[in-house]
Order: sequence, then structure tokens, then C-alpha cells
Amino acid sequence: MRRALELAARGLGMTRPNPAVGAVLVKGRRVIGEGWHKRAGLPHAEVEAIRRAGGGETARGATLYVTLEPCCHYGRTPPCTERIVRSGIRRVVIPFADPNPLVGGKGIARLREAGVRVDVGLLAHEAAHLNEPFLTFHQLRRPFIVAKWAMTLDGRLAAYSGDSKWISSEASRLYVHELRARYDAVMVGVGTVLADDPRLNARLPGRRKVIQPARIVVDGTLQTPPNARCLDPGFGGQTILAVGPSAPARRVAQFRRKGATVVAVRGRGKTVNLHDLMRNLYGLGIQSVLVEGGPHLLTALFAADLIDRVVTFVAPKIIGGFGPPRVLAGYGIEEMARAILLEDIVIRQFGNDVCVEGYVHHHIAICPPAQAQKP
Amino acid sequence: MRRALELAARGLGMTRPNPAVGAVLVKGRRVIGEGWHKRAGLPHAEVEAIRRAGGGETARGATLYVTLEPCCHYGRTPPCTERIVRSGIRRVVIPFADPNPLVGGKGIARLREAGVRVDVGLLAHEAAHLNEPFLTFHQLRRPFIVAKWAMTLDGRLAAYSGDSKWISSEASRLYVHELRARYDAVMVGVGTVLADDPRLNARLPGRRKVIQPARIVVDGTLQTPPNARCLDPGFGGQTILAVGPSAPARRVAQFRRKGATVVAVRGRGKTVNLHDLMRNLYGLGIQSVLVEGGPHLLTALFAADLIDRVVTFVAPKIIGGFGPPRVLAGYGIEEMARAILLEDIVIRQFGNDVCVEGYVHHHIAICPPAQAQKP
Repeated sequence: MRRALELAARGLGMTRPNPAVGAVLVKGRRVIGEGWHKRAGLPHAEVEAIRRAGGGETARGATLYVTLEPCCHYGRTPPCTERIVRSGIRRVVIPFADPNPLVGGKGIARLREAGVRVDVGLLAHEAAHLNEPFLTFHQLRRPFIVAKWAMTLDGRLAAYSGDSKWISSEASRLYVHELRARYDAVMVGVGTVLADDPRLNARLPGRRKVIQPARIVVDGTLQTPPNARCLDPGFGGQTILAVGPSAPARRVAQFRRKGATVVAVRGRGKTVNLHDLMRNLYGLGIQSVLVEGGPHLLTALFAADLIDRVVTFVAPKIIGGFGPPRVLAGYGIEEMARAILLEDIVIRQFGNDVCVEGYVHHHIAICPPAQAQKP
Repeated sequence: MRRALELAARGLGMTRPNPAVGAVLVKGRRVIGEGWHKRAGLPHAEVEAIRRAGGGETARGATLYVTLEPCCHYGRTPPCTERIVRSGIRRVVIPFADPNPLVGGKGIARLREAGVRVDVGLLAHEAAHLNEPFLTFHQLRRPFIVAKWAMTLDGRLAAYSGDSKWISSEASRLYVHELRARYDAVMVGVGTVLADDPRLNARLPGRRKVIQPARIVVDGTLQTPPNARCLDPGFGGQTILAVGPSAPARRVAQFRRKGATVVAVRGRGKTVNLHDLMRNLYGLGIQSVLVEGGPHLLTALFAADLIDRVVTFVAPKIIGGFGPPRVLAGYGIEEMARAILLEDIVIRQFGNDVCVEGYVHHHIAICPPAQAQKP
């Protein structure tokens, strides 16, 4: 299963909207076939592993380790369950049932019905992390949300003038572009658009086949300038403007004519209801969002308990200063003991920067123990 | 010389006020003796290495690598130069001349006079770092100053209530106690004394022979409560109160009666002139200071360009909040490009905390190239 997860990881970011899946086919103590899902529309990992084993009778009696429940529905490819049954595979081992309502245990049922033994629960935690956007999206009906920021060693996002180019090293910024390519969308508040006019696309020199993220601007009153760089359709991927009830209808129409997706979100006054925004993004099929916003957006998302993961860069620089901008504004706890404690910390170094990543909560409910037992 | 530096490092923190010194005696291609300085009053590294070689004629014609210029004066031990000359050592290799005015090149001169070849300049940078407090103290006539702080991943020193127990992990705090034992003094502002009443001693369970640091409170108007825990003489090491011109004489006398060292520092209004404070600490023989102060003291020291090294802990916690305390207050630069960039960064992990250390400036002027040449 570890090998299957490794194989799955090769497809990360390229298989959207499908999850990354890996499969290993074992006969006796020998691996006879391996496969991973490369891109939506191409064969699923299971089928690839069976094909690599040589087809025909080779797979008869073998055990298939696959990082997700095999599908049983006709999509862009035929159902994997039928291919597994036909190949004579005796046992299938999976970490958990597919949370996608189109599958959701039906694949397991179909296999067992056909006499294939199915064991559920192996490395469920690891497999869940591999596809957390996919699982969060289907289970919570909202995107998986990652907050990213870079700060100095004295905890500041920018100099007092607002200048923030650059806090982090070139190596850190390259990693941010990798993250942009990995997630479905990049989100900022309109304040960031007005201050920095970012492009928000994934720039990975020398890398082919980058799937560009959608660019989301949270902009209650629609103040985004019509010539903002993130609106450029040449980047690939859509630009989504999330506006509140007080956004002027004429401007909304103007932006829609320019090709932007303007989403009218519930809200009060100039603000946008972030939970409603997430419902809308779910409707648009956006499974994951990288938030690169300033203090206002980050604070509001933390306050709404909508951050799943944090990626922070700490640069060995010191700038000081009285005023903003700092990382978080209005969101504050009284006692250190009640601080949000990140979990499953990963610490890496990019140039002289430290990158600290961790989870805010484990929203993803992986399969209950009952299901993990043998049939 | 690398081996000599390794040996020297064993004495770090234990040899004060002497520097940590290591020595390796080589004859042909064989190491015949090693030594390091263990504690002030005990034999110097050179003498130890010669003694270990067996004494008598063993050292005749050998080369001595030592991490500092051998002394030529009578202190608590007799001059090393005489022992070297007597042993018949033919060549001495050192990184730089001793900045201590009692030695300052006189050791080199004495050896050369006696016909011993002396080569200066090997691994000078590394040797300077090993004894940066000692070198800074003698060259700049002030202590080597290390600023330490711990902050959350959103750049805060405490929750808005002022609660800061604890931001960093137990492993980080243990390292801070190691630092306290390594430097001559721990310094805070009176604000920290009033808020947290810290003990400021080095608590290293299971470690014998800890030399306790002096405890310095920067307290312009002498507001330290007479029962503050850092005044406890039971900790070992003195408590130094640095007061300004407006400190009430009666209170000064009261604290002096209690055994505290009250240092009258120049200043204006309620503040203390930090450069004058450092001159005073030089006079008291304090070679190094670990600053554990809050934003006010740290900011003032940065503004006075009196920080040599920074040790920061970043804990994977998020607390947010409007008000203070943040790391630095009034000290602010306008453009990111002008930020203080730490050099020679060391990144370590303590529990889930990241510890970033680096130099603000390289004040230490190691021997000029001319001196490093052969005679």
C-alpha cells in the first residue's frame, strides 16, 4: 500500500477533478503490475496495473492494493470493478470507501457480490492526506482551504509602507508556484489586488502541463480595477469575483462581459459571507483553494473556522515598525493555552527561509473502524 | 586546527572569563597530545597538550595547533609561551592574535624571539565564532549581545491579555536554559519583571557545574519590586539593576543593601542610555548578554545597533489579536530591500518549534591579512 501511495503521489495536481490514485498488483510475494492515474480521461490506476501485469490470466488469484475504492460507474472510462472481476483478482485492499456519492461503497459491494474479498482500512490516514482536497470536497461540500503567508522573523507581512517585495526567498516563491499548480484555485482579498496587482497564476519555468488554478478575488463591493492583471484570460483558468449584495449591478455586468465569473454571495454591508462563498465554490466544482490574502481575509477565514491547513514561510529578516500589516488582525485569543495548535507539522527549508506547514483541524472523517473490518 | 576547535568547544561556557581554547600537538603526521582549557585557574590548552604528550623530549620538533595566541603573562597559571619554548616545539599555528590587551601579539613576539616559527590565520573565521563573546568584549569594549524571543506562527509574543505561558515547547525552553548557562548575563526590561516575574537563572536538571548568569534588569526609574524573584541571591550570580538619573536615591540605597548591584547609567527622562549601559557592563567584566526582554528593550537595542546575534523560536500556534505585544515596536524600515538580513543562519527544530539563529553584523574584526602572513 505504501508503494501504491507513492505511485498515486506522482499524479498529484494533474488528475483534477479526479483524485490521485495508485495501484499495485501482487501475486505470491511478487509485484506483477503497478499503475497510477495520470490524468482525468486516461485509465484509472487499477486498470493500468492490470494492463502492466500483461493481461489475460496473469492477474488470476492476485491481490490488488489500490489507494481508493474502485469505481463502479461509467464516466469517461468504464467501471474498474468489472475489469477487476474479469481479471480474476481474488482480493482487493483499499484504505477507505470513496466519498464521491457516485461510488460511496457501491464499488466495494459490487466486488464482494462477485466473490472478490475486499479489505478496507490499510493506511487510511496516509491515503486521506494524499487526497485531502477530494475528500474534504465530497464530505464537507466545500473546498479544502490552505492559508499561505510569508513573514519576517519579527512577525511582519510587509514594511510599514506596505512594501512586501520580497519577504521570502526565491526558493520559497517557487514552492508557492508549485502549490498554486497543485490546488484548484488561488484566493486573495481585493485589498491585495489593489496593493500588489498579483497575477495569481502558477509560474513554473521548464515544467510542461501545468494546470493553472482559478483566481478568486473576494471583493464585496467589486472594487477590482477592470485592468487588474489577475483578470487576464491568457493565464488559463477562470477568474472568479466573489461579490456581496452591495456590488453595483452595472459593474457586475461589465466584468461578466469581460469573461470573469462573478459570483453573487450572501453578505452584510460590504462583507461577503464566507460560508456561502464556499458553498458557491463547491457548486463550481472547486475542490481546493490556496489563500494568499492579507490580514483581513486570513483573519475572517480563521474566525469562520474555514482554514484546513497552514503553509507559512519565515524569512530571517527583521524590519520592525508600528503599524500594520501583521499576519492576523481582529482574531485574538486571550490565553496561550487556547491557541490554535497546528498538527502533523512539516518543517522545511527553502534557501534561508523556514517553511512550517500543518493542519488546523482534521475535518476529514476517514472510514469508521466498523467498515475497516473484514467482511 | 579543526580538531583543536572541537576540543575548545568542550570548554564552552565553563572557562569564563577565559576563552575556550583547544590545542593539538603533532609530530610527523601523528597526533602526540591534545588538550583543552577546562576552567579558569586550570592549565591552559597548550600546557595540557604538552603534558599529555608525555613531557620531556617528546614534544621536541613538533607542531602545536592552538585556537588562540599563547599567553605570555603570569595570571593564575604561568605563561604558556615559556612552556612551549622549553618543550622544544618548533612551530605554532594559531588563527589570530589574542585581542586581550594583556597578550595582544606579545605571545607571538616572544615565541618568534625564542626561534619558534609562528603561523597566524588558519581557520580564523571559525575560531572567532567559537569565542565571539571574548573577542567582542576586548575589541569593542562591550559585551556580545544576543537577542532571544519566541513567537507564534502569526508573529505574536503573547496573547492580547499578555499571557505568554508558553509559546515555545519544552525542548525550546531547555535550550534557552542552556543559552543562559553559556552567556555571562541574562537581561530583561522592567516591564518583563512586572509582567512575568521571571527567575532568569539557568535551570538544567541533572547538569552539574552550571555557572549561573548575572541577571540584569534595565529599569530607568527603578520600579522593580523589592521581592522580585530575579533578586534572589540563592540563584548564584549577581543581580544588576541598570537605573537612569531619575531613579529615587532612597530606593537605590535600599536595593544596594539587599545585595543587588545598582548601576547608575546616563540617560534622559525615564530611559537609560544603552551604549552607556554597555560601557558599564564592560567595566563589570560581563562579556556576553542574552536579552530576553519584551518589545521595548528589543526595539531600543536594535535601534542602537547593539544586537550581534538573534535566536528566535517560532511555534506552530496561531493566536491573532489587535493589540500588542508584538516583537518590535517603534523600529521600522520602509522598504523590504532595506530589512536587516541575518547572516550565517542556523535552523534547528526543538519539538515542533523552529529555532532560527543568525548574526546581525559581523562586528568582530579578526586579524588583518598582513598579520596572517608568515614572518
